[in-house]
Amino acid sequence: MTIMQYEIRPGAYYDSVVLMELQRSLAALPEVIDAGVVMATPANKELLLSTELWPETVTSVTPDDLLIVVKAETEQAAVAAIAQVDELLKRRHSTASQSFRPRSLDSAAKALPEAEWVLVSVPGRYAAGVAKEALSLNKHVFLYSDNVSVADEVALKQQAQEKGLLVMGPDCGTAVINGIGLGFANRIRRGKIGLVAASGTGLQAVSSHIHQLGGGVSQAIGTGGRDLKPEIGGATTRQGLDLLARDDETAVIVLISKPPAREVATQLLAAAQAIAKPVIINFIGYPPPARQLGNLHFANNAWETAVLAVQLASQSSDTSPHPPRSTSARLSTSPRLNGFLRGLFSGGTLAYETMLGLQTVLSPLYSNGPIRPEQTLADPLVSQAHTILDMGADEFTQGRLHPMMDNDLRIRRLRQEAADPEVSLILLDVVLGEGSHPDPASELAPVIAEIVGQSPLSLSQGAKRVAVILIGTDEDPQGMAVQTEKLMAAGAEVFTDTTSAVTMISQRLQQSPPAIANPIDLEAFRSPLAAINVGLDSFYDSLVGQGASATQVEWRPPAGGNEKMMALLAKMKQK
Amino acid sequence: MTIMQYEIRPGAYYDSVVLMELQRSLAALPEVIDAGVVMATPANKELLLSTELWPETVTSVTPDDLLIVVKAETEQAAVAAIAQVDELLKRRHSTASQSFRPRSLDSAAKALPEAEWVLVSVPGRYAAGVAKEALSLNKHVFLYSDNVSVADEVALKQQAQEKGLLVMGPDCGTAVINGIGLGFANRIRRGKIGLVAASGTGLQAVSSHIHQLGGGVSQAIGTGGRDLKPEIGGATTRQGLDLLARDDETAVIVLISKPPAREVATQLLAAAQAIAKPVIINFIGYPPPARQLGNLHFANNAWETAVLAVQLASQSSDTSPHPPRSTSARLSTSPRLNGFLRGLFSGGTLAYETMLGLQTVLSPLYSNGPIRPEQTLADPLVSQAHTILDMGADEFTQGRLHPMMDNDLRIRRLRQEAADPEVSLILLDVVLGEGSHPDPASELAPVIAEIVGQSPLSLSQGAKRVAVILIGTDEDPQGMAVQTEKLMAAGAEVFTDTTSAVTMISQRLQQSPPAIANPIDLEAFRSPLAAINVGLDSFYDSLVGQGASATQVEWRPPAGGNEKMMALLAKMKQK
Repeated sequence: MTIMQYEIRPGAYYDSVVLMELQRSLAALPEVIDAGVVMATPANKELLLSTELWPETVTSVTPDDLLIVVKAETEQAAVAAIAQVDELLKRRHSTASQSFRPRSLDSAAKALPEAEWVLVSVPGRYAAGVAKEALSLNKHVFLYSDNVSVADEVALKQQAQEKGLLVMGPDCGTAVINGIGLGFANRIRRGKIGLVAASGTGLQAVSSHIHQLGGGVSQAIGTGGRDLKPEIGGATTRQGLDLLARDDETAVIVLISKPPAREVATQLLAAAQAIAKPVIINFIGYPPPARQLGNLHFANNAWETAVLAVQLASQSSDTSPHPPRSTSARLSTSPRLNGFLRGLFSGGTLAYETMLGLQTVLSPLYSNGPIRPEQTLADPLVSQAHTILDMGADEFTQGRLHPMMDNDLRIRRLRQEAADPEVSLILLDVVLGEGSHPDPASELAPVIAEIVGQSPLSLSQGAKRVAVILIGTDEDPQGMAVQTEKLMAAGAEVFTDTTSAVTMISQRLQQSPPAIANPIDLEAFRSPLAAINVGLDSFYDSLVGQGASATQVEWRPPAGGNEKMMALLAKMKQK
Repeated sequence: MTIMQYEIRPGAYYDSVVLMELQRSLAALPEVIDAGVVMATPANKELLLSTELWPETVTSVTPDDLLIVVKAETEQAAVAAIAQVDELLKRRHSTASQSFRPRSLDSAAKALPEAEWVLVSVPGRYAAGVAKEALSLNKHVFLYSDNVSVADEVALKQQAQEKGLLVMGPDCGTAVINGIGLGFANRIRRGKIGLVAASGTGLQAVSSHIHQLGGGVSQAIGTGGRDLKPEIGGATTRQGLDLLARDDETAVIVLISKPPAREVATQLLAAAQAIAKPVIINFIGYPPPARQLGNLHFANNAWETAVLAVQLASQSSDTSPHPPRSTSARLSTSPRLNGFLRGLFSGGTLAYETMLGLQTVLSPLYSNGPIRPEQTLADPLVSQAHTILDMGADEFTQGRLHPMMDNDLRIRRLRQEAADPEVSLILLDVVLGEGSHPDPASELAPVIAEIVGQSPLSLSQGAKRVAVILIGTDEDPQGMAVQTEKLMAAGAEVFTDTTSAVTMISQRLQQSPPAIANPIDLEAFRSPLAAINVGLDSFYDSLVGQGASATQVEWRPPAGGNEKMMALLAKMKQK
């Protein structure tokens, strides 16, 4: 026979660790079969139901209620177990490791004035309030709590940015600041690799692998899983990149996230590209255009990220990117171009590959063969902003020869783009080989010479350059060398694959995002870590165990969890 | 002053090369400013309008009409130009290089009986008919024409498969068969790399790069751009992979496509994984799970694909995959498992990375944190087919500790999955470090031992295995070595990163797709190429120029392009 007994404690707040330990203690009592001790959220009700621990007689509970359920072999054992709850809760409490516990953040800050960090792991609906208080005390915040609203996250990060402070989170599981792990963190060697991650276990996996491979970490900054969503716009990630870029102890930067919003990705990658250090991108599930584009290195998973990071850190004295596979270096040595790119392609895949590369840092980008719907060019006959045109597409070839055979339409379009004052760079592909035009360069070169020759030499407003991606072999009937020579003589820069063209073009055309207004003072990352912990006791224990200075706040929900009272209290504090 | 003159030739058919040359000849006449010679399709009307070559007085033309427009300085010059059209057309015709031209495919096949290939580049609406005729003559088809319907493509490829024939296309720009380029093709060294590509310039770029890098190509098979769409299901690609797998002269296989339909990708990758040769995947814009999963290598772009192919071809005597980073080899030496995988993760990113890897070859795959909407698990409390569960997600952690601290829920779920007779493999992650459970293995090991120990030793129906991805370092408080030992002693296989786990799991669990019913006879790829060309003269010239035997069909639209008559003729032929 099985007997179930339960108790509901309305509006009771306990630390989750306390609840877990209570549940274990109850389940371990004699004749007790199983026990459940949870806040009565709908999710937990489902879970209790699935493990046959939901008492059918329970009807009206709220997520604020603590539900204690005991399943036992006898009624006596069940009743006895429930009767011990208070005793078991008391026992736990007395084992806490810190004798004096400030009851507010304010008094904790006074007790440990050197603390520049506040760890917050209270339940989600209280978390934003605590974090806000921490910011107002000029502390960096590690916000472990989840279930914080997007609106609160936006507000917190805005406030933090204005003050040059960091809000890692909400839902930030891990960080390593000056060698001390916050939240969940592996013990890893110190070293030259700095990490910024919108992914907790992603950061843990990469940092563990770095350690296994003999490398080490300078700082590891968590951002919370939503930081790269459009609403947040990568606020913490930008700050993290900026501080690692300025940190002399960081030679290689790693950026980790599940697939980011595309616009956010473009901005972050443009910011990363402007950093004079190698940056490894591990946007899990994001299609990388190449393994390397300039200082950006793309990895597919945690292991590859770590391997790359350790490799690059060991050669980090040499930060110059690989030489591009181009036959000339005009673009590479010329200053930044102001204006738009127009790519006129005969090969659909060459166009697609080029777009895939350019969209990492150039925006907006349009095409008649777009990768994403929002890149669709309204009218293929009229370019907009940066445009990559596939002139081998149906709309250009119906009842006509393919542009690989017939240059007529491309030459007309070339002139049209050249006449556009907003254009600074025109990109063509030229595909040699059987079946293609017998001598494309001889037709294209005069037009290219016309465009480049008439262009002002200085690369200020109005200057136009032409680049060519030339695909072919030395045995092709047209002759790769002859074609290259004709195109270069006309003033074009010639590349032999899309990636090298993309690398150079993106360096010339990309606009660096605006600098961070209030850079974070690196001092907080260099002095021995001192922190105030509000929430899970175990995080405090972990800090102390790692040799950090810490104080644990004896936190209770404001106004006993009463929302109206909480709002009133918050208003009073503002005044 | 500018004068425009035009002529409309209703229902007139000319080879596109002929039209291009006519346009050039007209534009080169004295006092002529510009000329346009096009089939009067809506797209061409737009193009003529944009270059100011559309005569406003033209009102009713159809896409079957040839439109000849001349813009000249004087009316006399314009009229004189138009008057020369017939003469110019005649001149072109007489330069054709073949004295005898069969007027039908049938007679061409009799004239060149050794021809096993037919190249088709007639206008789209006639192309399917010609291709069908070629198949009925037991010829492989290279179908350059575009604007062929999906229904026609499905029918053609089905017919081809039944006869063990290949239909490359429609819209197939390039192939290299036994050293001879079809359509657009670069002249490349012969070698050990075989290519299959649903992308014309993708194939050209990769093969050119292979040549530049000193490598060579055995066969290069185009499939047409739509082959990896769901409607076609990779029909030609499957045949191509199969024949390259059997071809002794191919040591390394390259598979190229713009992003394929996911289900098609999974089937093709599973087929590729069953091949005992390295296969390089270049699905442009597809997020690769890793650089390598067993014999599958993932490249991001044409250049990387070529570099990898040349590297692998030079070491192709050693086809064994890299040793996995696992501490035991139970799974690797055990035979294939029949049944489902259940992954119970505490780390969201570890779950995501694992899914990203497994979805390349396992389907259907479900999750509460899906990569694609159709993978969404209906009820997180009930697994379906292959399931990857993120137990750190909100629905499992509200008002509870994270599963990295509290193993209770995971252990309950572990037992639930073990009780499911359809399950053969359970995968867990265990994340060590600060903040995590002080000794997770001691709690998980007894349950693992229970599952593996009670399982029949032979891996037939009902056998269950447990694998663990263990993330941590030797300095973590729990001790990486101690945790590994406990988990292994319980019977789990332990991996230290997601990719090695994914590699082994996918090899054990993936179901190879059914074998090709009518394999293609490799003989057609080994004998000197002989081909019948129907359409563009220049393709014939190119074949002959490369030393192939070829015959050009003097093709005219059936029934003068009259659709009703064409249908009637087709019916009569069937009888």
